Amino acid sequence: MSEVKVIQINESVFAQNDRAAELIRKKLTEQGTLFLNFMSSPGSGKTTTLVALINRLKDTLNIGEMDVDIETSLDAQHVADRTGIQSLQIHNGGLCHIDADMTARALLEYDTTGLDLLILENIGNLVCPAEFDTGAHKNITILSVPEGDDKPLKYPLMYTVSDVVLINKIDAMDYFDFDLEKAKERILVLNPKAVFFPISAKTGEGLDAVCAWILDELNTIRNR
Amino acid sequence: MSEVKVIQINESVFAQNDRAAELIRKKLTEQGTLFLNFMSSPGSGKTTTLVALINRLKDTLNIGEMDVDIETSLDAQHVADRTGIQSLQIHNGGLCHIDADMTARALLEYDTTGLDLLILENIGNLVCPAEFDTGAHKNITILSVPEGDDKPLKYPLMYTVSDVVLINKIDAMDYFDFDLEKAKERILVLNPKAVFFPISAKTGEGLDAVCAWILDELNTIRNR
Repeated sequence: MSEVKVIQINESVFAQNDRAAELIRKKLTEQGTLFLNFMSSPGSGKTTTLVALINRLKDTLNIGEMDVDIETSLDAQHVADRTGIQSLQIHNGGLCHIDADMTARALLEYDTTGLDLLILENIGNLVCPAEFDTGAHKNITILSVPEGDDKPLKYPLMYTVSDVVLINKIDAMDYFDFDLEKAKERILVLNPKAVFFPISAKTGEGLDAVCAWILDELNTIRNR
Repeated sequence: MSEVKVIQINESVFAQNDRAAELIRKKLTEQGTLFLNFMSSPGSGKTTTLVALINRLKDTLNIGEMDVDIETSLDAQHVADRTGIQSLQIHNGGLCHIDADMTARALLEYDTTGLDLLILENIGNLVCPAEFDTGAHKNITILSVPEGDDKPLKYPLMYTVSDVVLINKIDAMDYFDFDLEKAKERILVLNPKAVFFPISAKTGEGLDAVCAWILDELNTIRNR
């Protein structure tokens, strides 16, 4: 019987994470690649939003996408099929987040040279992903209308670490009790600098403003 | 306003969890208390569903409820205010789950003697809560229509360990692309014994069937 080498890769030590994150950010800044980390609850419309944004930006920017999931490759396949861009699926073996060391290992497999924009679709979860800096330049959280405007009260860390909040499924606003102003107020208490974009990934409403913000951020990191 | 008690509980060692879970289940079975663990994504309607179920059952059964959240007491207060039953808020200090030792410690603070039904509202998360037996007799997951019928593919462990799946927000079925049969098929692959109840916690549709199931389960544990 052939010898089989087994290595177990476990979660990286929490303390090392910030350093690894800074190295990723530095490298991507130097090569002029904007790195965005998208987080949200399961079913908030992350994949649909990303497909819509990528299709709006792919003629202007060279875009790569990495997708974290427990064991399936559905999202990465979905993004690749519907946008034509290169998409990497990261299986994280049942963990509820991705950290900077895991991102660094993924980047060994994914050549980001020449990319203008690198997108990370984090695992659908409002708790764990908020705790780990992935090395992204900006964190973006999607809060969908059916989830309710109380989510910032219940998952405060997620909204504290998010630079941008996309309020998705606004086409369903009449159908649910969701107070947009209350949601914004609750998020601004946690992060006074948070930027908001009400969107509908389904109808396309509000997505042009998000694309304009992404282009601005790309200019910002390139002019550093 | 009804009183809500708050206790702080931190994570216990994984290996001891199954033993602690069995002790909780044994104790509650002996005293004739059915213990149900409700899990789901954030915003799927757990609290609204529990309030509706408790209000339908509280004249027949003596009910207690425990609510896990990171740091707020919103849900326990909401349940207590809208049902009048005793509700315990467990703050788990930023963890993404509750395990059996944490349940056991909560039960030191919460006298369950004389309860027919003890409900645990787990933290909103489809990953971590699935990994820990809480000591409940049955696990119930709520899958809401706006989240999409692909959730069982993406969070398989949650649906593998769930005895019952409540498909919530069916009043919004016309508004979203959600294939109920596909969702059921995907769950049955993971757990062939899964029981389904399509419900709307908002309109009350389907809730009587869930109440009937709860009464049946209570009879089952009392006739063991």
